[in-house]
Amino acid sequence: MSLAIADIGKAVLETEYAVRGPIVARAQELERSGRPIIYCNIGNPQALGQTPLSWTRRLLALCEYPGLATQAPGAFPADAIEAAKALLNGTKHGLGAYSESKGLKFVRDAVAAFISRRDGIAADPDSIYLTDGASKGVQAALRLLIAAPSDGIMIPIPQYPLYSATITMYEGKQVGYYLDEENDWALSRELLEDALAKAAKAGTKTKAIVVINPGNPTGSVLKAANVKMVIRFAKDHGLAILADEVYQDNIYRDGESFESFAKAMTELGETDVSLFSFHSTSKGFLGECGHRGGYMEVRNVLPDVMAQILKMQSVSLCSNLSGQVAMYSLVAPPPVGGPSRAEYDHERGAILGELKARAKLLADGLNKIPGFRCNEVAGAMYAFPRFELPAGKTDEQWCMALLEKTGVCVVPGSGFNQLPGTAHFRTTILPPRDQLAEVVKLIAAFHAEYK
Amino acid sequence: MSLAIADIGKAVLETEYAVRGPIVARAQELERSGRPIIYCNIGNPQALGQTPLSWTRRLLALCEYPGLATQAPGAFPADAIEAAKALLNGTKHGLGAYSESKGLKFVRDAVAAFISRRDGIAADPDSIYLTDGASKGVQAALRLLIAAPSDGIMIPIPQYPLYSATITMYEGKQVGYYLDEENDWALSRELLEDALAKAAKAGTKTKAIVVINPGNPTGSVLKAANVKMVIRFAKDHGLAILADEVYQDNIYRDGESFESFAKAMTELGETDVSLFSFHSTSKGFLGECGHRGGYMEVRNVLPDVMAQILKMQSVSLCSNLSGQVAMYSLVAPPPVGGPSRAEYDHERGAILGELKARAKLLADGLNKIPGFRCNEVAGAMYAFPRFELPAGKTDEQWCMALLEKTGVCVVPGSGFNQLPGTAHFRTTILPPRDQLAEVVKLIAAFHAEYK
Repeated sequence: MSLAIADIGKAVLETEYAVRGPIVARAQELERSGRPIIYCNIGNPQALGQTPLSWTRRLLALCEYPGLATQAPGAFPADAIEAAKALLNGTKHGLGAYSESKGLKFVRDAVAAFISRRDGIAADPDSIYLTDGASKGVQAALRLLIAAPSDGIMIPIPQYPLYSATITMYEGKQVGYYLDEENDWALSRELLEDALAKAAKAGTKTKAIVVINPGNPTGSVLKAANVKMVIRFAKDHGLAILADEVYQDNIYRDGESFESFAKAMTELGETDVSLFSFHSTSKGFLGECGHRGGYMEVRNVLPDVMAQILKMQSVSLCSNLSGQVAMYSLVAPPPVGGPSRAEYDHERGAILGELKARAKLLADGLNKIPGFRCNEVAGAMYAFPRFELPAGKTDEQWCMALLEKTGVCVVPGSGFNQLPGTAHFRTTILPPRDQLAEVVKLIAAFHAEYK
Repeated sequence: MSLAIADIGKAVLETEYAVRGPIVARAQELERSGRPIIYCNIGNPQALGQTPLSWTRRLLALCEYPGLATQAPGAFPADAIEAAKALLNGTKHGLGAYSESKGLKFVRDAVAAFISRRDGIAADPDSIYLTDGASKGVQAALRLLIAAPSDGIMIPIPQYPLYSATITMYEGKQVGYYLDEENDWALSRELLEDALAKAAKAGTKTKAIVVINPGNPTGSVLKAANVKMVIRFAKDHGLAILADEVYQDNIYRDGESFESFAKAMTELGETDVSLFSFHSTSKGFLGECGHRGGYMEVRNVLPDVMAQILKMQSVSLCSNLSGQVAMYSLVAPPPVGGPSRAEYDHERGAILGELKARAKLLADGLNKIPGFRCNEVAGAMYAFPRFELPAGKTDEQWCMALLEKTGVCVVPGSGFNQLPGTAHFRTTILPPRDQLAEVVKLIAAFHAEYK
């Protein structure tokens, strides 16, 4: 064979992505053989029954097939028809033409307006790149930052494996920093300094720090002071910041609110720290994972660096336009007082209310299992409980056995990194409440017997 | 600033992509200032007025908003409703959920059936990966193949700059081989051997050869014998083949037909040469560039290598599902005898007939300009004429001056590579006929005055 495994590079071979790793492959195998599987491995809300927002799907249908507005006049509220018309005008040539490499200006304008509304700060549409999901934005930023094998990127422990996988693929160094599980997974300046110093001693030139807020897999939500601490730390050490803010609408703890890095940076008057922040249509209340919509907003980056980002984006031409429309539907909700608004508010509220109830049900349930301890799921879509393993067992083994025995598919903590000597797994909060209660029961019964 | 140009790696800095390079940037600038621009730089049919196929857009609208089938019963033919229903069943969770990393099995089955129908050969849905346009498939294959800086990939001269850009970005070596302009841009075994030997002498380990058929930017269509010659060459030297076949439906020369690498390989009984072939929804008669639909079919690759491909695809989860639906609409046309078929045949025929007329008009027109010589545009969407430059001038300068003077935006031959001492540019055949005639006139008048 002209291509054998010996021909494949180290970077590819060493890349690992546990969220779709061997346990998930085994789950699919079992499912094909007729076993019912509950997929708690991935934040894929519509696969677990979440309904798409009518507003989003109406815009998409009208943009895909503009004749509908006249052929089926009764099927669409006037504000949806109007928004779709404005969008189509904004595309100039419909959804079938490539857009600018950055994405449609019309949508980037709407994203900038959204950021301004959310944070009360200015935002520049020309610093916004529409991407195929947030993943592609993250990969673009890491591609830019990793210039040599000695370049390091600080990532949380635990982290979302997109980061470790991409750093490995681009042959950079992972510089892990611990989140403080005892302190609701907050970041500590001391632990950041420790990690950075250790990396420097090993010859790594750290270029940036990744922060995921709300946290994946931790389910934590950072306080404003914690966000500002990270900015000062980045400034002191000349690091760029990658702010993964895709769960910004998923906050369940009463009184808690989302604090963006862009806002905190503006409040600090910080103009020296380069910031890449990411958002997505896949999470929040849209849950439109299949549409691969996302954006990356860039701040404090010089024009010559910006030109490099644009060039890299242009090689694969543009992100998909349906995803761009889905992003528009996220940042531009139906006008208040219009015919679509009440339905929109109802659908949005129902989804977020349901997620909040599930977050509580899951964490409470897990905390009742002997040997389990789970922080409050204050945000995002996951619980990351710590649990006790019999001597000699790994969390991979435990998760595989859980799958074989119960059909519940979760991801071992080792796929996200964790404090040595501890065991965790990540499960989504996404199954419907009755199913989630069943998941907890199955885990409890399985764990009681596991040895 | 925490991120400066000095922090950016060589791989990124050296990447070049002329199709959206400085001349296009200048065109956009001129357009914003009110100058009308004719964009002949990129194969973006719907941006130049091509209408999307009704079949494609009906499936997309119905999948985005399934309620339409009952809310607007008159708006959709029964076969479109039925196909959309089958597709939605195939997704299990609609377009809003991530699919398998390879893409929906339902769509991959349809792609496999399409290949079998087209070539009379077997095709395995599990060896098909649905991608965000063909670009992402090509990048995946190159990522797999380039394991070290000494690894080389043979690419044609002239080539489509996605290849040179991606090889540079992944820090491999470009091993250029000349296409024979005098011989309708055919590949010659002698020129392939020369290029390979030269690379070996320079210490490059060549891993694969890229063939673009029909040709971009050349507009040529390879004969079956030429395709088989390449397969034997690859076999003799242990190379994999990347077959860029995105223009397979764009063949204009009478009596010419598309010869796929998969078919030629099967006819030769060749099972040792690894093949990656690429298709797209962006070209052909769909022209659905904005939907970023594509597939990569892999043959003669061992299971352990296949597992690496799957793992790499899984890191960014899946390609966009609207693009997957668009791909389905390409490989599964409306049933013969059904209510959509006549309209589909008419739309398809009109688009391909129009492209054929434009291909001839453009090449004939260019050949009448003193100092110009253009091969017949037998396929694809481009002409790549050779022309004489005044001493001391480059084709970049000529193209920039053409833009400034006439508003016609084409890409210099240097962006695709060319025989040293020759000058070319690439122009699409896509503008409507009257506009295309105008383009030829503008070029002729400009060139007569250029010095």
